[in-house]
Amino acid sequence: MKTYRDTLDFLLQHWLRLDALYTREHFADHSAETVTSVLDTCERLAREKFAPFNRLADTEEPHFDGERVHLPRATHEAALAYAQSGMIAAAQPYEFGGMQLPFVVQLAAAGFFKLGSVAMSAYGMLTAGNANLLMAHGTPAQREVFAKNEFAGRWFGTMCLSEPQAGSSLSDIVTRAVPDGEGFEHDPLGPRYRLTGNKMWISGGEHEITENIVHLVLAKIPGPDGKLPAGTRGISLFIVPKRLVDPQGQLTGERNDVVLAGLNHKLGYRGTTNTLLNFGEGKHRPGGQAGAIGYRVGEAGQGLRCMFHMMNEARIGVGFGAAMLAAAGYEASLAYARDRSQGRPVGPAGKDPTQPPVRLIEHADVKRMLLAQKAYVEGSIALGLYCARLVDEQHTGTPEAADEARLLLEVLTPIAKSWPSEWGVEANSLAIQVHGGYGYTRDFPVEQHWRDNRLNMIHEGTHGIQGLDLLGRKVVMDGGAGLKLLAARVSDTAQRAGQVPGLAERGNALGGALQRVGAATKAAWATGVPEEALANATPYLQAFGHVVLAWLWLDLAVAARAAGAALPEPRLQGTLSAMHYFFDFELPKIDAWLAPVAARNALTREMRDDWF
Amino acid sequence: MKTYRDTLDFLLQHWLRLDALYTREHFADHSAETVTSVLDTCERLAREKFAPFNRLADTEEPHFDGERVHLPRATHEAALAYAQSGMIAAAQPYEFGGMQLPFVVQLAAAGFFKLGSVAMSAYGMLTAGNANLLMAHGTPAQREVFAKNEFAGRWFGTMCLSEPQAGSSLSDIVTRAVPDGEGFEHDPLGPRYRLTGNKMWISGGEHEITENIVHLVLAKIPGPDGKLPAGTRGISLFIVPKRLVDPQGQLTGERNDVVLAGLNHKLGYRGTTNTLLNFGEGKHRPGGQAGAIGYRVGEAGQGLRCMFHMMNEARIGVGFGAAMLAAAGYEASLAYARDRSQGRPVGPAGKDPTQPPVRLIEHADVKRMLLAQKAYVEGSIALGLYCARLVDEQHTGTPEAADEARLLLEVLTPIAKSWPSEWGVEANSLAIQVHGGYGYTRDFPVEQHWRDNRLNMIHEGTHGIQGLDLLGRKVVMDGGAGLKLLAARVSDTAQRAGQVPGLAERGNALGGALQRVGAATKAAWATGVPEEALANATPYLQAFGHVVLAWLWLDLAVAARAAGAALPEPRLQGTLSAMHYFFDFELPKIDAWLAPVAARNALTREMRDDWF
Repeated sequence: MKTYRDTLDFLLQHWLRLDALYTREHFADHSAETVTSVLDTCERLAREKFAPFNRLADTEEPHFDGERVHLPRATHEAALAYAQSGMIAAAQPYEFGGMQLPFVVQLAAAGFFKLGSVAMSAYGMLTAGNANLLMAHGTPAQREVFAKNEFAGRWFGTMCLSEPQAGSSLSDIVTRAVPDGEGFEHDPLGPRYRLTGNKMWISGGEHEITENIVHLVLAKIPGPDGKLPAGTRGISLFIVPKRLVDPQGQLTGERNDVVLAGLNHKLGYRGTTNTLLNFGEGKHRPGGQAGAIGYRVGEAGQGLRCMFHMMNEARIGVGFGAAMLAAAGYEASLAYARDRSQGRPVGPAGKDPTQPPVRLIEHADVKRMLLAQKAYVEGSIALGLYCARLVDEQHTGTPEAADEARLLLEVLTPIAKSWPSEWGVEANSLAIQVHGGYGYTRDFPVEQHWRDNRLNMIHEGTHGIQGLDLLGRKVVMDGGAGLKLLAARVSDTAQRAGQVPGLAERGNALGGALQRVGAATKAAWATGVPEEALANATPYLQAFGHVVLAWLWLDLAVAARAAGAALPEPRLQGTLSAMHYFFDFELPKIDAWLAPVAARNALTREMRDDWF
Repeated sequence: MKTYRDTLDFLLQHWLRLDALYTREHFADHSAETVTSVLDTCERLAREKFAPFNRLADTEEPHFDGERVHLPRATHEAALAYAQSGMIAAAQPYEFGGMQLPFVVQLAAAGFFKLGSVAMSAYGMLTAGNANLLMAHGTPAQREVFAKNEFAGRWFGTMCLSEPQAGSSLSDIVTRAVPDGEGFEHDPLGPRYRLTGNKMWISGGEHEITENIVHLVLAKIPGPDGKLPAGTRGISLFIVPKRLVDPQGQLTGERNDVVLAGLNHKLGYRGTTNTLLNFGEGKHRPGGQAGAIGYRVGEAGQGLRCMFHMMNEARIGVGFGAAMLAAAGYEASLAYARDRSQGRPVGPAGKDPTQPPVRLIEHADVKRMLLAQKAYVEGSIALGLYCARLVDEQHTGTPEAADEARLLLEVLTPIAKSWPSEWGVEANSLAIQVHGGYGYTRDFPVEQHWRDNRLNMIHEGTHGIQGLDLLGRKVVMDGGAGLKLLAARVSDTAQRAGQVPGLAERGNALGGALQRVGAATKAAWATGVPEEALANATPYLQAFGHVVLAWLWLDLAVAARAAGAALPEPRLQGTLSAMHYFFDFELPKIDAWLAPVAARNALTREMRDDWF
């Protein structure tokens, strides 16, 4: 965790300049000292409660005996430690039990838990996302009863979107919500409905860690003809607690009609229960009647909008989890490469077997694999923190700055989610490779990181969905305003690099890459036909991501140079080396990805089923 | 398995033109009919004995109770079915129980077993490699007693190279072999030694499938001063049977001093036992004395040369296993994409939710993922078969053709091993992605393929080792003769493509890529300093591999066009599409890999430990 902590110190202090935030009223109680103390606490908890049990959570995966789900005791303790640390509510106002910490600090601090065990940290993450949504869209009673108890860690929360038949296609969900009798609109907890349907892939959907679970559920309210409205505009959002509660937030003793239909047995990420839930099948009959009781959040038909309001932060969180898994592999393989001696470098006269073997870290190819990991890991961390800093700007900046931050976030979120997910898996693969055969055994942690990380390109919007979101919506919305704004920031970095000895050439390369992305974006949309523009949206996403990361790396290099003697020399040299690595070995990849985009290459579109 | 079989039929019949082989005396008994019958048999056995139990071999991994290793019964039955099919000995002469089949047919046929379960097929593969080595370097008695019983499937074999402290660095092995008393040179089974030491990562190192296990062990014979000779030149090769045998090949009833020290618990490939073996620790005392009895193969000090003699075929086999795992994932995800309906394509007016969902295979991004898999899978199969065909040429061609084949094999083997290993894992990752969340569960086979395949970049020479072998030895040996020969073949394909409507442009692109690889090779060695030339050997390996695959794909396209009406239209269109995919989406990647090679980029070499 030391490498992560050192990286954080550099990024928060010398790059993101958090000092500027503490002068704002909302953060007035905070300072470098309070932030250090929060980071210290989380690092300590992660070392004590998470990291030592990450393997255990993998080998003793959740087990359902037909009545209850069993998890290792360590998972209970870690999840509760997360809640007790205050990190679920850290960015919330004092009156909701929060600390009014900047979101960027909350993310950085929670990063330690992810680093220790991404699967065990998911309960806290999901609960924070759930409660945040209620803070934005719930009634005062919903916030008071549900959000507040979640922030306190008394109850945990879930997000129930997918269904077995619908997957990524939310417009096809068929969970029904019908008004629960006369006067359903006047329940103190919100308009009351009965839900029936099945939800798939629900993380944290069942466990005994907390006395209650607050499900946030997407469902459709049938029209007068009894039919469900087509499309996403017919989706509404509901709070469906596992156990019913009264308006004071006390359990009524009645079980809601939500039951576990089964657990998914996964490749990785096994410390998080992942469930198929049945709503309203009548196993429990609250109020003497089948149907899961749910309280509507927001207006009918606005469910997806409410959910997506929180999606940026959730997706930044997923990307940051991927970054932390990559960081865990980087730290492990770095330690291994420093410790293990094997082989000899090739000298002018070949190898001299009479000399003792050297440490792995002295081989150029091993250093290549470590440097690539450093570039992926620290670049991903910078990307996540940059986005989190924009969230803070959106919430506490001047109206103009807030609007800019919102726009930038729209464009950057698909990258913040997808890039660390893709390159984090690659980093984890390199960590295995550095270990050689040992990395392929379960005696070392790196194979688990690799398995755990493979989920991140799938959940919270697959890679394909992120590409469509970026090229189909984000770079064209508001007349391309978000893309222009991002381009201005990239150009600004390139210009500043032009003033720094040794960095000017990198600034030019970045400027050229930015132009090529812009040209490809225009070419993709030149015919205005979405089918043609979007056929190669995934390679576009990959190229766009690499340009964003080149920008961030150059910005980090400029900041490191500017920090002068305040920055330890190894951190400066390491930052410069990783930046140079990124420009020499990674950025050139974008041309291969952009070529089919710019050509509106029709190959994949026109491929026929029977040709495979 | 249908996709693989269809691919084989195209490659063997229309591309490799096996007919030409059957006219040679060695293969005179063979014809298209005998080959079809062999393929039919192996396909049937793979469907019955391997594929249904592949998951079982993963979940019930080998277990050591302190006395014996337990494997599922299905693994015993599959491994014995492999032996009984005659495929271990298929390419051997009749007098050794073989069928005198071309090696290319043996590889293609054994591919079915790998496709069904790569881990369960490893026993037969290893035994074939072991016995082949004895055929090349053993005495008549060693062939008769050991090789023949292995070909018959009565005993299985292993290769014992690595040691816990040495890994890839074979010059550092410390297993000792000392002459076993007076007259040790006159044992009918070969010069007799006593071995002591530990061997790591030994696949198939212990099991009860066969009555005996024939270990081939690298060890060093101490000099007169009792010290082991430094370097690889001090390595000798020994046959160390688990149970001792008499010169007639009957078990003597005496147990040799080789014992299982432990099993490795792996990320995947769990159907193959992987072991740590102790030689000569005295648990058994053959002839009343501690020390494992071993019979030297070949001259003292020539052990590594003997081992490497067979390395080309072993490495082609590893690459082909990677190709088969990729093929298994391709077939699974293709079936899933054809079966599952989800979402709608974007039309000019967006999506119409009132329309029913379409099948996954109708989405452009899903087709991209399937087309990429097709390009990786069928390209890898073509590469493996091409190399196997060269092995046949080496053994049965004219002296000139044999010499060319040998040279080409030297250059192509690192690619045949590394390329399918790297891009097979990528194919398996895409297969998971096509399945979405389901692909991440153990209810579908694709996650296991991905785990199993990750081994292939590690064993039989890591990716880094392959890169050093290619750039450090193979492309410069004999004054670059191998590279020149390969370049001539590539140019020939490019020229022939120039005569085919629609392919000329691809021929030019291939010619350009070949030139860039040649220029990078020269630039890497321009200073003649190995350290500088080899610092970026892995990216060189990647670029070289992509050019080889572009060449093969174009050659396949030319062959498909030339086949005319004899080839079904979907196979023609599929081959052309995969070729175009490779040239549009893959080949452009080489520039990013070659840039640091050509620049002799010193970044990774100069990176310092404390900068990480």
